[in-house]
Amino acid sequence: MTPKPTLAVVGATGAVGSVMLQMLSHHADVWGEIRLLASPRSAGRKASVRGEECEVLPLDEEALEGVDLALFLVPEAVAAQWAPIAAAKGAVVVDTSAAFRADPDVPLVVPETNPHAARVRPRGIVASPGSTTLALIVAVGALHAEFGLAELVVTAQQAASGAGAGHAGVEALRAQLGLVAGDGDLGTHPGDVRRFVGEDTGPFPGPLALNVLPWSGTAGADGASSEEERVRDETRRILGLPALRVAATCVRVPVVTGHSVSVHARFEHPVPVGRAHEVLATSPGVVLYDDPAAGDFPTPADVVGTDPAWVGRVRRSMDDERALDFFVCADNLRKGAALNALQIAESVVTAL
Amino acid sequence: MTPKPTLAVVGATGAVGSVMLQMLSHHADVWGEIRLLASPRSAGRKASVRGEECEVLPLDEEALEGVDLALFLVPEAVAAQWAPIAAAKGAVVVDTSAAFRADPDVPLVVPETNPHAARVRPRGIVASPGSTTLALIVAVGALHAEFGLAELVVTAQQAASGAGAGHAGVEALRAQLGLVAGDGDLGTHPGDVRRFVGEDTGPFPGPLALNVLPWSGTAGADGASSEEERVRDETRRILGLPALRVAATCVRVPVVTGHSVSVHARFEHPVPVGRAHEVLATSPGVVLYDDPAAGDFPTPADVVGTDPAWVGRVRRSMDDERALDFFVCADNLRKGAALNALQIAESVVTAL
Repeated sequence: MTPKPTLAVVGATGAVGSVMLQMLSHHADVWGEIRLLASPRSAGRKASVRGEECEVLPLDEEALEGVDLALFLVPEAVAAQWAPIAAAKGAVVVDTSAAFRADPDVPLVVPETNPHAARVRPRGIVASPGSTTLALIVAVGALHAEFGLAELVVTAQQAASGAGAGHAGVEALRAQLGLVAGDGDLGTHPGDVRRFVGEDTGPFPGPLALNVLPWSGTAGADGASSEEERVRDETRRILGLPALRVAATCVRVPVVTGHSVSVHARFEHPVPVGRAHEVLATSPGVVLYDDPAAGDFPTPADVVGTDPAWVGRVRRSMDDERALDFFVCADNLRKGAALNALQIAESVVTAL
Repeated sequence: MTPKPTLAVVGATGAVGSVMLQMLSHHADVWGEIRLLASPRSAGRKASVRGEECEVLPLDEEALEGVDLALFLVPEAVAAQWAPIAAAKGAVVVDTSAAFRADPDVPLVVPETNPHAARVRPRGIVASPGSTTLALIVAVGALHAEFGLAELVVTAQQAASGAGAGHAGVEALRAQLGLVAGDGDLGTHPGDVRRFVGEDTGPFPGPLALNVLPWSGTAGADGASSEEERVRDETRRILGLPALRVAATCVRVPVVTGHSVSVHARFEHPVPVGRAHEVLATSPGVVLYDDPAAGDFPTPADVVGTDPAWVGRVRRSMDDERALDFFVCADNLRKGAALNALQIAESVVTAL
């Protein structure tokens, strides 16, 4: 009998790492040893996985010896440095950062949408898309398979837990809400939010409490943000539509966890709303939750802690038989990060 | 010398009424008597306008005698009943509710965009658009005048103060934030927000604190909300484009005041980004605030308490020379309600 593969969780102490350890404790146990790694700063802490307390080890060359599969849940710069080292030592790397998502020798994989792509790994690395792409891609991919996607206009409302290293985004939102809402006044006078919060807005480019910020990531080309470019580029790669027309706007909202995406999609073929409902209702990884008059539409508060992408508000758009509008919510730490990476890892080790 | 016209402010004690009284105290004083009216429940209270304390009178037939211009800042049902009575008594009515916005005999007016429409008033009533339309229409109208609008895809992030009668929206958000953020925990566990907030979500169809709700207003046709239908129908009327392709999604966000709209627009003619910047920078009622890498983009916290629509994130969309994306924020109680109505009223009395 082949021994069960050794798994390394790199970045075990961050926001996504914490969710990953919970998931590993609840998914079917296909792993032998599970090694928890983190930056030297976080090493030495204890963390629980599969009911056992484990010591978190520092990420170094020795810690990567004998690893069969390495889940990288770390910032881009750390992944860029260490993922090739892990791969050179024989591990298959599944990376959740943006470091390799545009690399033509690294497949970008969503198991519900393009599972076969994970089989060809010239660099020994598989990339998992960003949390905003992951919120929408399973639903969009299912509709694309049936109707042929022609154009996508999306506005993403991103949660705080997706920002900054570790738990920096949530900590900043927590601190800001204490400052602006602590006195029960809610900053109803002009400028109050900015005045109460002050200059230190954490990983956000302005105060997020009682506000929305139409900018996330860094500056891309031609006025887009890096997050907006990623939604476009990742969607094109995953769907295999390199010239797909995509307009994306990413807005940060004062939500702890759960990305929401407002989607306008135009297809090559007519898309009856009833048939779109059937496709979504029967697609793996999607829950159709769509009766708005009865209060049934997805919200971040309802989907946080769940695995699927929840889809609602499905409706005809512009009286155009080829256009649909809908709204998707997904947990940005689960399907948006930990879950997708774990799904890739499980599919890879099953085929090893 | 003609005596100055008598103004009635109907709904003087609500959220929009409070802002209107401040504005009347700061705008050029073209009015003779200013009469403050409200529901019998709120009548008898004192309110300050132009530096004087005034008693709020109950809205009845007697209170409307001798009024030259009546600003209606009340819910739709109250306006539907009382605006025709005020008009029959000789007042020009400017109504901010949805009661008459679709009436072909009532012009729907944005002074920066279609000022001439206010001159023809078969019913003696002029309607002011909804706050979401008003957030985007001045910027969109200016670009339409230059480039010819062909298609509009918008996602609006609506503030709490636009919901419910009086101050119900803000009160509900305040109470909910106290429940979910009062202990500093921010409801980071699944279901926490809904559990803490409970069943009473005020004028919202779910918990708004630390959440976004993709539903506002009532159920319209074919899966749209009434708010979404209004954005489409009002935009078409104001721009005189009855067949304009519009896809609108309205989402409520935990912001006190200040609507934000993510806009994807396609035009009949090529729209160079530099020329779009010039058009927006020189349009009355618009402030261009667009250098995102330097932190210059509009947010609700920055625009609350100001008159114009603030526009940023202007950029090429889809590599299409006819398509632009941009982001607009405006104060939903000012340009979105009180200010637009007062601008209409001032233009009407100037021409009387």
